[in-house]
Amino acid sequence: VDQPSDSPLGDPTGLHRVLDGRTVLPQAADRLDTRAGLWPDEVRVRVEKLNLDAASYRQLAGKHQGDGAAVRAEVLDIVATRGKMQNPATGSGGMLVGIVEEVGPKSSLGVRVGDRVATLVSLSLTPLVIEDGLARWDGRGDQVPCDGYAVLFGRSIAAVIPDDLDPDLALAVMDVCGAPALTARVVESYADAVAPVVTVIGGAGKSGSLSLAAARQRGARRTIAVVPHRAEASLLADAELADAVVIADARDPIALRDAVASAGGPADVTVVCVDVPGCEGGSVLATAEGGTVIFFSMATSFTAAALGAEGLAADVTMLIGNGYVPGHAAYAMQLLRSSPEIRALFGQRLGAHAETGA
Amino acid sequence: VDQPSDSPLGDPTGLHRVLDGRTVLPQAADRLDTRAGLWPDEVRVRVEKLNLDAASYRQLAGKHQGDGAAVRAEVLDIVATRGKMQNPATGSGGMLVGIVEEVGPKSSLGVRVGDRVATLVSLSLTPLVIEDGLARWDGRGDQVPCDGYAVLFGRSIAAVIPDDLDPDLALAVMDVCGAPALTARVVESYADAVAPVVTVIGGAGKSGSLSLAAARQRGARRTIAVVPHRAEASLLADAELADAVVIADARDPIALRDAVASAGGPADVTVVCVDVPGCEGGSVLATAEGGTVIFFSMATSFTAAALGAEGLAADVTMLIGNGYVPGHAAYAMQLLRSSPEIRALFGQRLGAHAETGA
Repeated sequence: VDQPSDSPLGDPTGLHRVLDGRTVLPQAADRLDTRAGLWPDEVRVRVEKLNLDAASYRQLAGKHQGDGAAVRAEVLDIVATRGKMQNPATGSGGMLVGIVEEVGPKSSLGVRVGDRVATLVSLSLTPLVIEDGLARWDGRGDQVPCDGYAVLFGRSIAAVIPDDLDPDLALAVMDVCGAPALTARVVESYADAVAPVVTVIGGAGKSGSLSLAAARQRGARRTIAVVPHRAEASLLADAELADAVVIADARDPIALRDAVASAGGPADVTVVCVDVPGCEGGSVLATAEGGTVIFFSMATSFTAAALGAEGLAADVTMLIGNGYVPGHAAYAMQLLRSSPEIRALFGQRLGAHAETGA
Repeated sequence: VDQPSDSPLGDPTGLHRVLDGRTVLPQAADRLDTRAGLWPDEVRVRVEKLNLDAASYRQLAGKHQGDGAAVRAEVLDIVATRGKMQNPATGSGGMLVGIVEEVGPKSSLGVRVGDRVATLVSLSLTPLVIEDGLARWDGRGDQVPCDGYAVLFGRSIAAVIPDDLDPDLALAVMDVCGAPALTARVVESYADAVAPVVTVIGGAGKSGSLSLAAARQRGARRTIAVVPHRAEASLLADAELADAVVIADARDPIALRDAVASAGGPADVTVVCVDVPGCEGGSVLATAEGGTVIFFSMATSFTAAALGAEGLAADVTMLIGNGYVPGHAAYAMQLLRSSPEIRALFGQRLGAHAETGA
């Protein structure tokens, strides 16, 4: 391995590892430099598990019609070719869990060798080398046992996984921790006004249930969960995370609008947490004039949202769900610890199926 | 023509004209019903001119390598097949100008027969029939002389073009009027804080120059325009719309960040008005922590913005540029009337090339 230990400080954005012929950030790059030697502000992690983004995994599984070996072969090919796990079709990646192996002398990430960490930046910009051929993964499901290494940059973010928590549970929570943090911030912005009605579309999912908990904790006047079918509704009704739970197909704009209205809407704040395309119009229609829609789904189309709202003459603020909000991991952990309902819901989901937003 | 005059009121969103087998809004529909007979809340317009969305026109011209006849044939085919001008590749449409031909008895659009109007909703959701085979258009350029008709729904928006304004000028302004209106709103939100530094990327374009004028009018502390080359810089320097004009390739994140920094940045508010892909990372990097990025470009990638900001651990609010803000057309006209610089800039641009955001 070429050891660049004499190199100057790496660019905190990871620019020094971009191998494209032009200047692009690692997320936009075709290929990254995956050398194991660290620039002084980097950290290397021994990977234990990859958590593929839900939209990415769904695309791969669909393309290969459920052939796990073919899915695994394509993931290996993507990582070998690009030096990172970024699905070319969806642009998304996922996240990983591992043990800190080396910390550069100028790193400011606040982690130590031996810490078990989850990366809170997307795999789509993380240099990654897979060393075991993913031999322990059957290609079915987005949780990928893996041996290999990954590199974190000066400006990356990693959260230490608490010793007292099941690593899978911690990973599942951290994976979506941007959603409750941003939801909390938006709900709090109503502090000097009438408390908002908050609808969470996909309320029984990981990001959705945490967002419901955040909305309630920060003073929502009423929380409404939209779920696609009865099984999800009963999951959520048991958890008592929402004031109302309604069943609707979020891709049907009229059905969504009417379902939310019947439950006490329209919402002042609508949080979109379902990873299926085509929910933009309904989300706008189900939101009150002057309200806010927060899109967390990686299946969101920028054009459909912008032109859809314009086409409806809808005066709504539309936010791109930034996965980073300062303190987001700690806040999500606090919601988890303070809510037996959230813990129970995540417990039921783990192993069943997964949903990620990275 | 089948006259549905006995029909109940149409759905204000135009749902009654969707011919797809499932419930989708007109913007998301594959095909619209273009019958000339009106539902009671509709308006029919005799089309004089189509203004194709810049991203859509660029895609078509590129695909056909500048063969105007082939571009025209594809536009005719799209409209005949879909009943609307929505480029399947970009999802975007454009807007139109025409004369009001019939107003349904229950219409609330506030227009009268004989008014010359511009539609302020996208062509991507407007029922349209072309009757002249676009015989007066050579397929080169996004301004399309056209005879035919279009239908506006109960919840559509149309603006009457003032008699004292060149219709082409009015159209060009109305086409992008959402951008200055939303920029004004965001800048105003700093009223109780330190006035913001505002950067407009693509500041010499139509939406960009109006956004600069709006930012200054609503109290920006400093306005910075980013343009791609010297010719645009001199256009803007003459117009004196910005405190600083810098040349940078917005697709190069480091160059953009450094250019904005050298001009007094980073910005508290960054407005993205260039219709080229790949500006998400640089826009985020050129924005201060806690700042806001408003994406008006139809070339914006939702995934690139969301994952890019997360990957940079950038605490920025990212807004999807909603083309509708109440009063947007009147506000843009006010900016035009009160600013000789804006009028001169638009005058220079008209005929040269066009840029649209609908």
